[in-house]
Amino acid sequence: MLVLDLIGVAVFAASGASAAVAKRLDLFGVVFIGMVTALGGGVVRDVVIGAVPPLAFTDWEYVTTAAVTSLAMFWLHPQVDRLRRTMLVLDAAGLGLFSVVGALKGVDHGVPMVGAILVGMITGIGGGVLRDVLTKEIPVVLHREIYASASLLGAAVIVASTHFGLAKQVPMTIAIVLVFGLRLLSLYRRWSAPTPRVGSTSG
Amino acid sequence: MLVLDLIGVAVFAASGASAAVAKRLDLFGVVFIGMVTALGGGVVRDVVIGAVPPLAFTDWEYVTTAAVTSLAMFWLHPQVDRLRRTMLVLDAAGLGLFSVVGALKGVDHGVPMVGAILVGMITGIGGGVLRDVLTKEIPVVLHREIYASASLLGAAVIVASTHFGLAKQVPMTIAIVLVFGLRLLSLYRRWSAPTPRVGSTSG
Amino acid sequence: MLVLDLIGVAVFAASGASAAVAKRLDLFGVVFIGMVTALGGGVVRDVVIGAVPPLAFTDWEYVTTAAVTSLAMFWLHPQVDRLRRTMLVLDAAGLGLFSVVGALKGVDHGVPMVGAILVGMITGIGGGVLRDVLTKEIPVVLHREIYASASLLGAAVIVASTHFGLAKQVPMTIAIVLVFGLRLLSLYRRWSAPTPRVGSTSG
Repeated sequence: MLVLDLIGVAVFAASGASAAVAKRLDLFGVVFIGMVTALGGGVVRDVVIGAVPPLAFTDWEYVTTAAVTSLAMFWLHPQVDRLRRTMLVLDAAGLGLFSVVGALKGVDHGVPMVGAILVGMITGIGGGVLRDVLTKEIPVVLHREIYASASLLGAAVIVASTHFGLAKQVPMTIAIVLVFGLRLLSLYRRWSAPTPRVGSTSG
Repeated sequence: MLVLDLIGVAVFAASGASAAVAKRLDLFGVVFIGMVTALGGGVVRDVVIGAVPPLAFTDWEYVTTAAVTSLAMFWLHPQVDRLRRTMLVLDAAGLGLFSVVGALKGVDHGVPMVGAILVGMITGIGGGVLRDVLTKEIPVVLHREIYASASLLGAAVIVASTHFGLAKQVPMTIAIVLVFGLRLLSLYRRWSAPTPRVGSTSG
Repeated sequence: MLVLDLIGVAVFAASGASAAVAKRLDLFGVVFIGMVTALGGGVVRDVVIGAVPPLAFTDWEYVTTAAVTSLAMFWLHPQVDRLRRTMLVLDAAGLGLFSVVGALKGVDHGVPMVGAILVGMITGIGGGVLRDVLTKEIPVVLHREIYASASLLGAAVIVASTHFGLAKQVPMTIAIVLVFGLRLLSLYRRWSAPTPRVGSTSG
């Protein structure tokens, strides 16, 4: 479990560091954005559910994984950028894992169903939202592709399964695979969420 | 009370969703920004005073009201945008309610007077500040019109009244009406806070 | 100690208010950004380590110092801007103080070593990051000069010293002077953190 979690951290850190390199931040900025992208969603989750200090501050494996990955990206980004497709697949897996594990942690801390689904989504997309805000972009999840919706679906499935008292193992796997599959399918088919029709009175 | 609170949530959600539509975010983005605008101030308040998980995560009425209103705005924004004047009046009422109720919640959680006034203001303006940061705008309350000042005044009045041991009902009404009236009057008279004189050394 | 802390608050408030004046925010915006810059790092620290309500909400001296300094900057900014060099020296002292005191507070609340170093850095640079996000800038610590690295170093020194059970007085002084000296030296020598080499595949 910890190993899976750390893989998720590494993938998200790589995505954050890569965005920071593209913005020409310095070494510290690249590592900082990488760490915020990897750990930010979990920190917000833990603060909201009252599990403080957050995991990212108590378990050194998380910080170290995020920092080392981001450092590596500082030098290796041209090579890694060529692996864009692999990165997207890993990122989809990380999204599924974070959303489902985050929602479960919400349930374990007594958050009711609707709230726990939100907690799962925040865990999944929170780091990326913070990355975009810090690099002065409108968060990409708010205007492109199916990403947060996949996260929401996975969180909803796992929260519903706990509601019916099911064992965790199987529903977790199903929920993670659902997020992963929906995310990849939407990338492959270029699905997007609908955008508002804009008349003369707005925009 | 809950009904009043939910009307405030709905108005703030509509304002957030409307801003998101203007930025051409997708369906998810519109709902997300609507929810953050409606619930963000209260979430920050609850995290700061230690009332976790925040109300927005434990009482499904809040999330549902914010989500449904934002969804409606996704389709109905051209019609609602024509009601701009009504929206401003409702928003002023929401600001008064959120600021005063937020300050009282701070007092109830043992926050001293000066801090409780800040807690009230954060509850009133926090959601709008987050909306603007997420849509890549400098928060409008920082450079235009009388908005945060009205919120501060209302929070100060209610906190002072609790200090003197008054019953809550009447002072709450007075404080809310004060915020509401000051906000509308400043809109009508186009009042603004003063801006700094800028010499050759800055700007 | 409190006096030192309040000097740090005043310096950071002045830096925030000055940035807000440059962005032509109004009176409220200048005071708000000044307060967020001065108090934001400490508020995030306290929320993360579970010390809520944060110091900034319970001790009126902090809020008052930040507000009065920011108000003064609203009128006196042309004069203060001419003291730019003095301000940079005071800011370096504030950075050292906040980073070291913040890291110690993390240790006192049971945060493990790696986490406590991060807590110290967040205390030192958090307010400035929030200032930049609210005024729509990519945080300056992420792409220019040695600033966060100095903060990290000071936090690491004080956390290591508590690990070895040393008394606090002397290590604190050493750690603060280290941050202060490294920051000023890097300004004087125009040191920067390295930036990534950018090939054709990114940027």
